[in-house]
Amino acid sequence: MGKSWATSGREGGGAWSVDLHLDAAGTGGRSGVRKRLTDALREAVRGGRLAPGTRLPSSRTLAADLGVARNTVADAYADLVAEGWLTARQGSGTRVASRDVPRPAKAARPPRTSGAPLHNLMPGTPDVTSFPRAEWLKAARRALAAAPDDAFGYGDPRGRVELRAALASYLSRARGVRADPERIVVVPGFMHGLTLLGELLVARGLRRIAVESYGLDLHWDRLDRTGLRTEPLGVDDLGTRTDGLAGHRALLLTPAHQFPMGKPLHPDRRAEAVDWARHVDGLILEDDYDGEFRYDRQPVGALQGLDPERVVYLGTASKSLAPGLRLAWMVLPAALASEVAELKFAAGASNGVLDQLALAEFLTSGAYDRHVRSARLRYRRRRDQLVAAVADAAPEVQVSGIAAGLHAVLRLPPGTEESVVRAASWQRLGLQGLSRFRHPAAAVPPEDGLVVGYGTPADHTWPATLAALCRVLP
Amino acid sequence: MGKSWATSGREGGGAWSVDLHLDAAGTGGRSGVRKRLTDALREAVRGGRLAPGTRLPSSRTLAADLGVARNTVADAYADLVAEGWLTARQGSGTRVASRDVPRPAKAARPPRTSGAPLHNLMPGTPDVTSFPRAEWLKAARRALAAAPDDAFGYGDPRGRVELRAALASYLSRARGVRADPERIVVVPGFMHGLTLLGELLVARGLRRIAVESYGLDLHWDRLDRTGLRTEPLGVDDLGTRTDGLAGHRALLLTPAHQFPMGKPLHPDRRAEAVDWARHVDGLILEDDYDGEFRYDRQPVGALQGLDPERVVYLGTASKSLAPGLRLAWMVLPAALASEVAELKFAAGASNGVLDQLALAEFLTSGAYDRHVRSARLRYRRRRDQLVAAVADAAPEVQVSGIAAGLHAVLRLPPGTEESVVRAASWQRLGLQGLSRFRHPAAAVPPEDGLVVGYGTPADHTWPATLAALCRVLP
Repeated sequence: MGKSWATSGREGGGAWSVDLHLDAAGTGGRSGVRKRLTDALREAVRGGRLAPGTRLPSSRTLAADLGVARNTVADAYADLVAEGWLTARQGSGTRVASRDVPRPAKAARPPRTSGAPLHNLMPGTPDVTSFPRAEWLKAARRALAAAPDDAFGYGDPRGRVELRAALASYLSRARGVRADPERIVVVPGFMHGLTLLGELLVARGLRRIAVESYGLDLHWDRLDRTGLRTEPLGVDDLGTRTDGLAGHRALLLTPAHQFPMGKPLHPDRRAEAVDWARHVDGLILEDDYDGEFRYDRQPVGALQGLDPERVVYLGTASKSLAPGLRLAWMVLPAALASEVAELKFAAGASNGVLDQLALAEFLTSGAYDRHVRSARLRYRRRRDQLVAAVADAAPEVQVSGIAAGLHAVLRLPPGTEESVVRAASWQRLGLQGLSRFRHPAAAVPPEDGLVVGYGTPADHTWPATLAALCRVLP
Repeated sequence: MGKSWATSGREGGGAWSVDLHLDAAGTGGRSGVRKRLTDALREAVRGGRLAPGTRLPSSRTLAADLGVARNTVADAYADLVAEGWLTARQGSGTRVASRDVPRPAKAARPPRTSGAPLHNLMPGTPDVTSFPRAEWLKAARRALAAAPDDAFGYGDPRGRVELRAALASYLSRARGVRADPERIVVVPGFMHGLTLLGELLVARGLRRIAVESYGLDLHWDRLDRTGLRTEPLGVDDLGTRTDGLAGHRALLLTPAHQFPMGKPLHPDRRAEAVDWARHVDGLILEDDYDGEFRYDRQPVGALQGLDPERVVYLGTASKSLAPGLRLAWMVLPAALASEVAELKFAAGASNGVLDQLALAEFLTSGAYDRHVRSARLRYRRRRDQLVAAVADAAPEVQVSGIAAGLHAVLRLPPGTEESVVRAASWQRLGLQGLSRFRHPAAAVPPEDGLVVGYGTPADHTWPATLAALCRVLP
């Protein structure tokens, strides 16, 4: 069996900074050591473990670390320079020669598919080119400087207290949530929150959950995987119907801005849902995915404000800032907060502390409000332009739903959705038909439509994207 | 039912930056509007939704946003200033008055328990005071500047390609891992990786997994929750025994540095484990939690290098940098990579992209190697001091295991562990006995010992902590 050698790190940050792991089996005299070291280094270069351009430690340092004579290392280096594996230049030390070794970084990039969309109106993502990099960096710098040492340890599974306090204040102020840092759990994305809540409900013996007739199959699949069958409620002019809740004890809802239909739940229905939850000891999961983005004058506060003990509020930075941050949060009934925190701890998935502290700083400094306000203006303008362009290009197509969010539903003449989606695909316009958001068990008849994520494109591509959309409308 | 009002964000980042959510039900003339607005604002302040010091929008802006006359807002503000809820000062606008409202931030801090340890030798955490803040910020700044826009979207569930490429190169070089970015999955902590692997094994029909006689109950619990019963193998002078593997198809192992016992697995056993896995189509989960920290000259390369199709390599930044980063990684057999990525996607837990890109930059710039090297020096010195101090203070106590890692096992005279742990607790010295790391079903007889996390204390507390340890030794 081979023994292993590696540099043992005698220098605290000197001229070289590379760890080696060399297999050099057996023992022997100096010439034996030299040969084994040479072989091991060669193998490391050949196999790609030492990448081209990597600077090797000085012969003195490596010799000290390996406990061999300096000349042995110098000789091994000289051999490999002679063989072309290494290069030695005055002032730049000994390095691995540049050769045509396949680079892992390049191998990893997925091949560009020729079918990638030219124009992207897929719903669910904000304009990521508008991520406020400079402001975020400022917040991150301040947060990193101010962070107590214990922030770098294993922390509270609910998330950092600084962020939970900032969220409590913000959500109360901006969304009418009755929040308290003790009841907030920060999660790496809405989907993980949904997973934890699904586990919680299953642990309480539930096997079914009511959902809306239209929604995201990703969410239904996730609940299904945790052991909850999703059963769609009906829908009418007031929004999701509550008369189908009999026999249920859990409900997933987008009350402020139904996804994807785009209407708020009628106040009567909100009250009925909460009454139902009180009556049956039930739980409402409120998905407030885009609550920040209202362009008219009557935003609907969080349903959670009506009964914080019956509603779990779920919010996210994925629409207001960027999905890549993986920052989302839940405001939980007091009775459930510690149980959900335990489930989260068990699943072992938490947000990095630096992002948490940066978001806390972003919120308390007012940078979040400023960013949301500016994004709101831009998206509102886009929505106005969408409405005008569609009215112009396709008078038979209706833009439905309230002026809010990052997407709109375009109602198409009956029987045209499939051909429009196909035409979009031919033109490499990323777009989704309404039918794919309809729950397979929904009782409502299918309607033809498009779910247009007008928030997705970059500003400079927006006009061309809108024009491409208009071209495929009937 | 109440309608809701909120400011609609006409300004793109002006003098005020606060969203309001005001319940102001009903309609009526100007005096009715003024009263409802006043009531709503008062309620928002009283209930804490508007925190003391919060700056309100100008009356002009709020009036425009609410679609009411400017005087109506000015009057409402004036009323509330008169009542003491708001303050108005030249140059600083209208603000919520500072009163003794309970601040969420303060309410959230857990009360300091009088029993919190004065000295902390709990294993599992590095010295978090040594987190390289300035270097990390530099990497984060560079990463944020260089990040492509699409990094801010929903990304590859395996993690950013930049990080996977940097890890492939580093792990190959430093740990002898046969890595390829395509097979790497970045996870928010080892525990989440273990969860995903547990789900994978259960999906393949496994219901049991072999583990070491000593380990972490957190890991056993987690596997148990996914549906895998953990069954401990025996142990002898060569390390974990492989003769108990018959009938098993999965094995969790710490081959480089057994946790907590501190010895590497004997080469024969490594080979036997891999042979077993090949023979039974089994899988080894290699927990390489502290592979960077070796202080002698013969580090053991990753077991994964022996057979990348039979061994899942699991590494983490929790020991080398900080647990708070929540950065860990798996190198998977080709046949499993996409399946694990799908499980990860379904669980909805990913790392924030900025931490991923910062670590990639940290690795490729050499900052990671420099940090590890410097940390290694410091921990090595601590270990040497621990060995010397224990030899001096308690000659009957043996420091066992190789010179590596962030913890050491102190073998105690038979029958003394419980009283030593109790004495430590009295002196508020955080410390764990060896017995709590013994699997409940382990066949090996219990041994008395301590697991001393000498990596945990801050540098300036280390001498006092070491002295406190020596005082409780028998």
